[in-house]
Amino acid sequence: MPRLILVRHGQSQWNLENRFTGWWDVGLTEKGEAEARAAGELLRERNILPSIAFTSVQTRAIKTLHIALEAAGILWIPETKDWRLNERHYGGLTGLDKAETAAKHGKEQVHIWRRSFDTPPPVLEKGSTFDLSSDPRYAGIDVPQTESLKDTIARALPYYQGSIVPHLKAGATVIVSAHGNSLRALVKHLSGISDEEITGLEIPTGQPIIYEMADDLTVTDRYYLSER
Amino acid sequence: MPRLILVRHGQSQWNLENRFTGWWDVGLTEKGEAEARAAGELLRERNILPSIAFTSVQTRAIKTLHIALEAAGILWIPETKDWRLNERHYGGLTGLDKAETAAKHGKEQVHIWRRSFDTPPPVLEKGSTFDLSSDPRYAGIDVPQTESLKDTIARALPYYQGSIVPHLKAGATVIVSAHGNSLRALVKHLSGISDEEITGLEIPTGQPIIYEMADDLTVTDRYYLSER
Repeated sequence: MPRLILVRHGQSQWNLENRFTGWWDVGLTEKGEAEARAAGELLRERNILPSIAFTSVQTRAIKTLHIALEAAGILWIPETKDWRLNERHYGGLTGLDKAETAAKHGKEQVHIWRRSFDTPPPVLEKGSTFDLSSDPRYAGIDVPQTESLKDTIARALPYYQGSIVPHLKAGATVIVSAHGNSLRALVKHLSGISDEEITGLEIPTGQPIIYEMADDLTVTDRYYLSER
Repeated sequence: MPRLILVRHGQSQWNLENRFTGWWDVGLTEKGEAEARAAGELLRERNILPSIAFTSVQTRAIKTLHIALEAAGILWIPETKDWRLNERHYGGLTGLDKAETAAKHGKEQVHIWRRSFDTPPPVLEKGSTFDLSSDPRYAGIDVPQTESLKDTIARALPYYQGSIVPHLKAGATVIVSAHGNSLRALVKHLSGISDEEITGLEIPTGQPIIYEMADDLTVTDRYYLSER
């Protein structure tokens, strides 16, 4: 039967430093690597072993995938990296310290940017430090200057439907290693969560979330693997 | 212009223990990981950056690739893993200590198994400790019971021609992280080495070998990156 495993990357350097990250490419901390290893060990222990993997083009999600797959003994499964599984683009907030940003723009405004469904943060100026529009990894892609959660869903969900669903329909166990907001896109769809509620849903890092499905991909069970 | 980068995986646990490895899946040692990191740092330093990667389904080659790509700052490039880039299957010698094997079968015989072009070692018995025919990674594949270098070339070279050459023809820089014998298959083809000579050619671990090519894939230059 089809099964989807979602894993949010472990702690990154900028999670630790409390900075808005978005599309900026930062590495995992040692704690983040340990979280990934624990996720893979849990998959192995419970014998929930994916046969195919998807991740973003951001190092923290790719490394989480690799560390988890190695710990599960299945580093050899095919993997696909795609920018549409990237974190939400945080626009002009990228690189800023969250506390400083709140002091500058007011807590209320930062709360809106972080928790509104369709209000994006201010745009990232072209040519500024964190502008990725000339990064070779995004060659041929119209790199956004900012994204709301709605914008993130608008590129992550079609990718899921076009590239991941066919494997689920074929009965595969699929793992997706990604980010808070690209995973919210999938969870919103799979669990039928409203626009209002999804913005507040916290997806824990390094905790495999399992969706068991019928052949028609109706969800028959969902759970955190660590709680079973 | 097309460019091919070949990297042989760094030291594995069984290289260190001096055991025949073949298709058995062993990890890298710390030294092997350091070799991979140095290879990636060299690629970055010289700005020889691949846009696509190929490797085997064996952990030591996959990890070498991942460590090198991360050190080069390009963990995000697409990668394909295929069993046809695996090490030569060492048949019934798999797992044996090289010195013990020489003491048992005679140095001369072991030399023939290691250095003959077309004489394979004895077959690996079905159901023995190192039999991989029921390993899920080889589902649907007729796992060999032993291979000569000739046999290894007979599956590695068509893979190169079918799956890697199209990227080179499109002008890409391609990296292949693989094994002593699967890389011999490519080097034999690209450098026009005879059956007799190829068996004695030692490919150093963790040293990027660069093939520069014309559009028609004629080799215009070949060198160890560390020597330029």
